[in-house]
Amino acid sequence: MRSRYMWIPLILVIIAIVAGFQYIDWRQSGTGAGLYSHDWSPDPIQRYWDPVNFYKAPDTIQGVLEMAQCIQCHEAITPGIVNDWKASRHSQATEAVTCPDCHGSDHEQLHLPTPEVCGSCHTKQHTEFLDEARHGFPSHVLAMDRAVDAPHFVDKPKAEVQSCVQCHSVATKCDSCHTRHRFSAAEARRSEACITCHSGPPHPDDETYFSSAHGQIYLQEGDEWDWSKPLQKGNYKAPTCAYCHMDEGRHQVTEKSMWKFGIKEINPNTSSNKVLRERWVKRCTDCHEPQQARQWLKELDLERKSAWKKLYSAESILRSVRFNDAFFPAAGDRPTYPSSTWDRYFPRERIGFYEGQASAFYNVSPIERDYFEMWYFENLGAYKGAAHGDKSMVTKNHEAMDNSLQQIKQHAETLLKRKDTEADKTTNKKLWLEGEYTEFNRENN
Amino acid sequence: MRSRYMWIPLILVIIAIVAGFQYIDWRQSGTGAGLYSHDWSPDPIQRYWDPVNFYKAPDTIQGVLEMAQCIQCHEAITPGIVNDWKASRHSQATEAVTCPDCHGSDHEQLHLPTPEVCGSCHTKQHTEFLDEARHGFPSHVLAMDRAVDAPHFVDKPKAEVQSCVQCHSVATKCDSCHTRHRFSAAEARRSEACITCHSGPPHPDDETYFSSAHGQIYLQEGDEWDWSKPLQKGNYKAPTCAYCHMDEGRHQVTEKSMWKFGIKEINPNTSSNKVLRERWVKRCTDCHEPQQARQWLKELDLERKSAWKKLYSAESILRSVRFNDAFFPAAGDRPTYPSSTWDRYFPRERIGFYEGQASAFYNVSPIERDYFEMWYFENLGAYKGAAHGDKSMVTKNHEAMDNSLQQIKQHAETLLKRKDTEADKTTNKKLWLEGEYTEFNRENN
Amino acid sequence: MRSRYMWIPLILVIIAIVAGFQYIDWRQSGTGAGLYSHDWSPDPIQRYWDPVNFYKAPDTIQGVLEMAQCIQCHEAITPGIVNDWKASRHSQATEAVTCPDCHGSDHEQLHLPTPEVCGSCHTKQHTEFLDEARHGFPSHVLAMDRAVDAPHFVDKPKAEVQSCVQCHSVATKCDSCHTRHRFSAAEARRSEACITCHSGPPHPDDETYFSSAHGQIYLQEGDEWDWSKPLQKGNYKAPTCAYCHMDEGRHQVTEKSMWKFGIKEINPNTSSNKVLRERWVKRCTDCHEPQQARQWLKELDLERKSAWKKLYSAESILRSVRFNDAFFPAAGDRPTYPSSTWDRYFPRERIGFYEGQASAFYNVSPIERDYFEMWYFENLGAYKGAAHGDKSMVTKNHEAMDNSLQQIKQHAETLLKRKDTEADKTTNKKLWLEGEYTEFNRENN
Repeated sequence: MRSRYMWIPLILVIIAIVAGFQYIDWRQSGTGAGLYSHDWSPDPIQRYWDPVNFYKAPDTIQGVLEMAQCIQCHEAITPGIVNDWKASRHSQATEAVTCPDCHGSDHEQLHLPTPEVCGSCHTKQHTEFLDEARHGFPSHVLAMDRAVDAPHFVDKPKAEVQSCVQCHSVATKCDSCHTRHRFSAAEARRSEACITCHSGPPHPDDETYFSSAHGQIYLQEGDEWDWSKPLQKGNYKAPTCAYCHMDEGRHQVTEKSMWKFGIKEINPNTSSNKVLRERWVKRCTDCHEPQQARQWLKELDLERKSAWKKLYSAESILRSVRFNDAFFPAAGDRPTYPSSTWDRYFPRERIGFYEGQASAFYNVSPIERDYFEMWYFENLGAYKGAAHGDKSMVTKNHEAMDNSLQQIKQHAETLLKRKDTEADKTTNKKLWLEGEYTEFNRENN
Repeated sequence: MRSRYMWIPLILVIIAIVAGFQYIDWRQSGTGAGLYSHDWSPDPIQRYWDPVNFYKAPDTIQGVLEMAQCIQCHEAITPGIVNDWKASRHSQATEAVTCPDCHGSDHEQLHLPTPEVCGSCHTKQHTEFLDEARHGFPSHVLAMDRAVDAPHFVDKPKAEVQSCVQCHSVATKCDSCHTRHRFSAAEARRSEACITCHSGPPHPDDETYFSSAHGQIYLQEGDEWDWSKPLQKGNYKAPTCAYCHMDEGRHQVTEKSMWKFGIKEINPNTSSNKVLRERWVKRCTDCHEPQQARQWLKELDLERKSAWKKLYSAESILRSVRFNDAFFPAAGDRPTYPSSTWDRYFPRERIGFYEGQASAFYNVSPIERDYFEMWYFENLGAYKGAAHGDKSMVTKNHEAMDNSLQQIKQHAETLLKRKDTEADKTTNKKLWLEGEYTEFNRENN
Repeated sequence: MRSRYMWIPLILVIIAIVAGFQYIDWRQSGTGAGLYSHDWSPDPIQRYWDPVNFYKAPDTIQGVLEMAQCIQCHEAITPGIVNDWKASRHSQATEAVTCPDCHGSDHEQLHLPTPEVCGSCHTKQHTEFLDEARHGFPSHVLAMDRAVDAPHFVDKPKAEVQSCVQCHSVATKCDSCHTRHRFSAAEARRSEACITCHSGPPHPDDETYFSSAHGQIYLQEGDEWDWSKPLQKGNYKAPTCAYCHMDEGRHQVTEKSMWKFGIKEINPNTSSNKVLRERWVKRCTDCHEPQQARQWLKELDLERKSAWKKLYSAESILRSVRFNDAFFPAAGDRPTYPSSTWDRYFPRERIGFYEGQASAFYNVSPIERDYFEMWYFENLGAYKGAAHGDKSMVTKNHEAMDNSLQQIKQHAETLLKRKDTEADKTTNKKLWLEGEYTEFNRENN
């Protein structure tokens, strides 16, 4: 009896798979790029940040040119980049890497070099870079696909998203770390190469590294170190970002990633995490006692546990507010996410990482936003402080979390009481659903 | 008929002009300096910050002294400044610039050199510096007149205003940028020379420049660059403040000023702004493609547009609160601005730049302060982030503005409801009009 | 008559003294260290931060070893520390200071060098360091006893307190400032040596020094200075932390301490403070006019006076809330401080420095926390800004204090009205007394 109708779900699954592929194909055929390409149009500046998809060569000069001609002209109009190339290993190699090698020689068809172009010589580094994708997000190679071409970014005003793309373009070009046209390995070994992007909430790597004892030693003495040396033990008095995160120069930066950026609670005792932990201990013992390294990592576990207790307390308060339908304004009284059809018909407040990170970014009621800031800024700041050895960042952010928890408690009480008196019946809900800014977003994205 | 009484308004205008000049003369004859000199008395420390008006020579040493005597004595008591002078071009010139040249030779009549003293040799730089005044505020040369000798500063406790004067003294002395007694051009070419003042809210130039790719390259490699070279293309791998804002060393820093500090909305398409924009493009193309430069500037326009949409939304909410007379405490229930007779009799909440920036600085109700912070800190932080290429500053401050807008919305609803229930009738208004701090200000300014 | 019963209070006093000593002895015999040792247990990481009390040598290697053996092995496993020792004066002295001299030679009994170990050679510095204790708190030598082994830290989750210990361990080891294994004096003369700890709220020494004119000159030119020179006048163009606070290298850093960290109001005109002030003037006149130095110090007095007016206004509002029993939640409705038996039976809100700093750290109602932040973060930030010459920090924090004062005023009004309507009768007090986080603390400390 059971086997007779087995073909029904089977056929349905096959149809669903085919339809799914069709849908994805259709989505990606918009003017944008990626899975949400139907929902946004590229901005001209993206030709520089996402050159693979959008670069347009200037049409001011015509002709197929040779190296000598490139240099002759650009020494006059942009001498800085010529100087940089001359100082680079590209110009000094026996078989020099020249302008046309990376940009092409037809000036009307010039292109900006993609990671693939660089990878045609630097195969090892490029392969390692691509390998990050195996470990999922966060990673450099997925920085555009998974974080920028995403529903919560599609909804934000483009002028703001451009700020994100500027850094996330690390996925599409190599000069984020090795600045043009010297493309120096020595440069990328220094922490400044990383912190152009890795700074500010929610990823204060800059602030926490430079406040740590490691960072302070680097600040004092770094200028005297020999940066041509590889990132191996004994070569540097103190570590830089790359020393710890890119052992021996490996371009797969996530191979020791364990705490998932602090964004969700992890179980530090899974067998895979024990493997990752031993990788950390190995790196730390370049300088420190192994048991000291282990103890530091345990301190980080404890800090995380304490942070998550606070976050879960806040989430549980928010859930009781939602259970009582007491959010103000409620999800249904706010503009919906244009990219989510589902949300339009079944609006729902989403609480915490597992119900959807995207929902928390904007267009939320104040108590939700308070939790978002507690989770995304204070919690992540505390994590980075604990991971990088910046004590004051841990203290400051745990105090901030204590404070947020109290604010949320008190705010929740007010909301629950408000609900009882049914005060919201008299409220001007239009204040939330209409207005210049809402209109502006609707029209300009 | 019309011409017969023409003399009446004419005479009135003439009387008004004469009276106006008399009034200004009287205002300026107080113990302070400038148009508000009747309203404040100088603090002893101002002898160093505003030496033109207030410096008093020490009376410990008598006599007219020669260079050799200055050196002989000061090598013992303040060897550092002698060392600096010896390392300067002043001491190494064929005809050395000596202590008496700048300070005079009568020790009881010593003076601190003003811009005019420096300008007697450095005519080009001094003329350019004075030329900033043509472009109005903000400018260095007007930094004292228009920002510190102003009603909203007269009202603030002097101890706090001194913090402002410390930087605004750039108008009255040259060692803000060329520190004494080396007065090095190489020093002033580096960004540190500027950011002693240009940091912190509302002008996070320090934070945003050093977080940008430009700043990070400077931090890494700047110590190895040859700073004796002029600020011209090809001489530096990355720009500093002066490279972009003081082309070729021009001391007229506002000649490319277009967005007016982010403080009010500008129309980027006026013909004069198109001229300024082309100046920027010219500077950027020392290194970048012209269309890339143009696109960056357009991104900045878009960021500004998005910011102003948010600010106008908030202003419109505040105006509806004022229309309903629902501010709490209302303008009339707060201490008035001592320097404004008009405000005393016709107290009024002022919203936004065009109704008077001054009013927003302090002594406002919480919702007004929230808007002030949104406008003056968050908006200006976002602007500097977008202008200097610090992405995380844009994201952070736009999120802060979104948040502020929500807080203001919700706060406005509470105030409007409060008004309906006439709750304020029972309020202890004295809490606002009296109190230690209010008394303290009244007595100590 | 009076003399006949004189023995009663005398005997009672003697009994009390003996009992007191017994009590202290008992308290100190816990698993922790210090007066509160019964209330907390050490965390394994403390073996590195408080090596005197808790270090445990690794048991991986056996045997009594000689210097050559240490080097031979550690050149392979931790070459960095061997390189550092080789570059240090310890290795280059005629009679070299070797590994066993500081760590012992039995590998199973290795110890980390305490200040006493270093002091056996560097007697002058060690004596000066110990001498700080005479001046009371804050001081380096008491950093563990008085700040970390204290009731308000015993109550906090250990994971957070570890952040504090990391810096406060300056009391128990010398490599906080002279990093191992070079232990360079030149390193400790630079400001980075201090700011590894002296940064962030409530002690933004890092931020304020580096934003000052002094700090900016150091940032620009410091790398070119000869750091082997002693901290004497004429040797450095601009001062570092140590130049001003450790005259000529004196390791007694509190010998000019006058404003008590900004934490309570001081009378700047006591005769002892006049002595301290003249010490400052003497140091400043290495470079500046004496009257300029005096004036700067007076500006700091004025800034402090203005700050305290604001703080006292806030305290007076809080006291009126307490007088009306209107705090919400009230002290009795909140978890008590586990270390204070007294507080358990007589719960009381404590307002300001003199009623107990400890109470303000956490577990307070929002209005109390607002005052704590005003006092501990904003006030102290303004103080450091004024003391170190960072203008924008003064402005920013005084604005923040104005703002806090307003928030507290408005919040107080709400609380007082709330009390009148007896709203709290209906409140779910359990929200405060129970919950995951409260439970977590109870169990895990």
